[in-house]
Amino acid sequence: MYTILKDGGVCSPRGFLASGIKAGIKASGNPDMALLKSERAARCFAVSTTNKVKAAPVLYNKDVLEHAHFASAVIVNSGNANACTGAQGYADSEKMAVLTEEKLNLTPKSVLVCSTGVIGRLMPMDKIEAGIPRLIQKLKPDASVDFARAILTTDLAMKSLAVEIQTEKGVVRIGGACKGSGMIHPKMATMLAFITTDVGLPIDFFAEFRSNIDESFNAITVDGDTSTNDTCILLANGMSDIQYNDMNLSEQGEFRAALTMLMQELAKSIVRDGEGATKLIEICVSNAESRSEALKMARFIGTSNLAKCAMFGEDPNWGRILSSAGSSDVNMSAEHTDLFFGDVQVLASGRPVDCDREALNAVVHQREYKVTLVLNMGSASASAFTCDLSYDYVKINAEYTT
Amino acid sequence: MYTILKDGGVCSPRGFLASGIKAGIKASGNPDMALLKSERAARCFAVSTTNKVKAAPVLYNKDVLEHAHFASAVIVNSGNANACTGAQGYADSEKMAVLTEEKLNLTPKSVLVCSTGVIGRLMPMDKIEAGIPRLIQKLKPDASVDFARAILTTDLAMKSLAVEIQTEKGVVRIGGACKGSGMIHPKMATMLAFITTDVGLPIDFFAEFRSNIDESFNAITVDGDTSTNDTCILLANGMSDIQYNDMNLSEQGEFRAALTMLMQELAKSIVRDGEGATKLIEICVSNAESRSEALKMARFIGTSNLAKCAMFGEDPNWGRILSSAGSSDVNMSAEHTDLFFGDVQVLASGRPVDCDREALNAVVHQREYKVTLVLNMGSASASAFTCDLSYDYVKINAEYTT
Repeated sequence: MYTILKDGGVCSPRGFLASGIKAGIKASGNPDMALLKSERAARCFAVSTTNKVKAAPVLYNKDVLEHAHFASAVIVNSGNANACTGAQGYADSEKMAVLTEEKLNLTPKSVLVCSTGVIGRLMPMDKIEAGIPRLIQKLKPDASVDFARAILTTDLAMKSLAVEIQTEKGVVRIGGACKGSGMIHPKMATMLAFITTDVGLPIDFFAEFRSNIDESFNAITVDGDTSTNDTCILLANGMSDIQYNDMNLSEQGEFRAALTMLMQELAKSIVRDGEGATKLIEICVSNAESRSEALKMARFIGTSNLAKCAMFGEDPNWGRILSSAGSSDVNMSAEHTDLFFGDVQVLASGRPVDCDREALNAVVHQREYKVTLVLNMGSASASAFTCDLSYDYVKINAEYTT
Repeated sequence: MYTILKDGGVCSPRGFLASGIKAGIKASGNPDMALLKSERAARCFAVSTTNKVKAAPVLYNKDVLEHAHFASAVIVNSGNANACTGAQGYADSEKMAVLTEEKLNLTPKSVLVCSTGVIGRLMPMDKIEAGIPRLIQKLKPDASVDFARAILTTDLAMKSLAVEIQTEKGVVRIGGACKGSGMIHPKMATMLAFITTDVGLPIDFFAEFRSNIDESFNAITVDGDTSTNDTCILLANGMSDIQYNDMNLSEQGEFRAALTMLMQELAKSIVRDGEGATKLIEICVSNAESRSEALKMARFIGTSNLAKCAMFGEDPNWGRILSSAGSSDVNMSAEHTDLFFGDVQVLASGRPVDCDREALNAVVHQREYKVTLVLNMGSASASAFTCDLSYDYVKINAEYTT
């Protein structure tokens, strides 16, 4: 069993220090540089955007992690994405890493870089260079909030969480922070997520991390676009002196469950904070032929503007959901499909059910609810998390001028 | 060369009669049944939705056309889609066809059926049965407008067009009508289109028709969803006494060009009439590795909410377009990509160009303009047509209640 830690975040696991400052990159004057450091070089897993247009820091991290799977720190800035900045952009990302390494007395290629913000502008390197020593000076072990605040862009809320798991050998912790408002917002682009743990993880845990990303950050959708900078980094420094491989099977299961929950909750907090969002909806596709098919369909429905407008309008519009499911290129048959809003069944074998309209209306008026599509084609299930499409989404994205 | 016919439509080619009536299916009292009839059995090509959830008339037509490629008439209703109606729905579609065949003294399996409207409700067969004799009674050779009006649903404008081509052997004509407002996407969403011609077409012209659909009705997108009922039917009755195979090569080229233009213009009229649309934007992807890749990317950009909101906001937001292009899973490299709004270049080799801001603003304030993404990866090009995403789109789709 895991316990959620009050005010927890990236610094909750042992041996992680952080800081966040106002470096003057954002015109708003809000915090815009952050640093996360492990006292010991940490096992590092990173997954980044599949967009063909990748920002400089994404390319830089890829080069760094190609040969080693360890990192000691991550330097982050918000306000400028360092994307579409060519060779100069790459050199700037590298310089951010190297300066941090030098001032922290770290070995080369031990610092990763994340940027989020405006696309197409060169980094204000004078501000970055002035910010790095200040970030290092401010590093402390209880700065989860400072870190989580400084990585935000158009987000309205800070996103930070930590959990603790009791094992036979002692307590281990997992912490995390993330940002992201629209899935991509080229003004202030991108989703960034940082996960820390004081458990020692083996290299082959990457497959587990990858699968957790599919069920969390890859299962959310605000508007269906991916960005140039999306990155999720996991740092495992082993400073609890407990290795994952030394845990018993039940403890390993608890650790995985806690990590999944933490990543899913962080991901859901991004959807809740989606541009103009008034609702968080879980789209669950069950009894599909495979998990990947179920997830594909759930994600497809989660990006349907028609379905999302109906959610905003608090209308239990099963036709839009069924039709979107049919467009998703996943094997299904309307004649075998059941559909539920919350616990209220609206379709049985593809035909409308004479359901309790009052109960149904109560479901769609909630701020958060679940839509379940039962395909009856197999035994696999998956969920996607989406928000509704509101006037404010259009307002936020139409009124912004480059 | 082709000439556009004033007030032309499905009845412009020789030997086509039509009618449209108010049968009481729609609560609004607007026209909701239509009939199109050829004096001679016509070569018939039909392409319908790829949605896994197919409406009864789509399934019925498929069964009819499986063995024969001729049809004499199409019976259409708006107001009820006859989708998710199970075996009863199929029987109702069949009954619509059979009643029409009997009352027109046609051979069995010579009438096709199209329906559009509400999903999940059984057809009001009493109204349909009463409507068919009235439609037949009203059949006349100059009823293009009656037909085009009766097939509409949430459309604001009637969509009808015809062209004439002068050949050595005489004049031939092509006519068409379509409907579609929201739920329009490549792969034919909630869209019905009817094309007529008095040219005699060979069976292998189907490949040409299929490719025209990809460049017209499959190249448009309003909101990325496909529907259960989309269908495009081409009837070629040969009543000009001119066979396509007897035309010379240049005449054949003119006929194909005219057909392409007519189908593209009808398709664009659907986008112009998209729910809440204020602009029609052509997204052209050029110098791609293949036509299908170019079309895939153009369509993907055309469904990006972020790009569509920027179009509504009249902002030349190249970052959203480039980033969406990068998400489309088509081979590209930002470093090789140029981008134009109208004639104004905004990106050269992936980097912003110091362009004429005034000229650029003039482009994005137009009601219709073209965005061109030059990938410099090959020599293939394709265009998609999209509209902007406005407050009214959300309003129309959120306020509608099932």
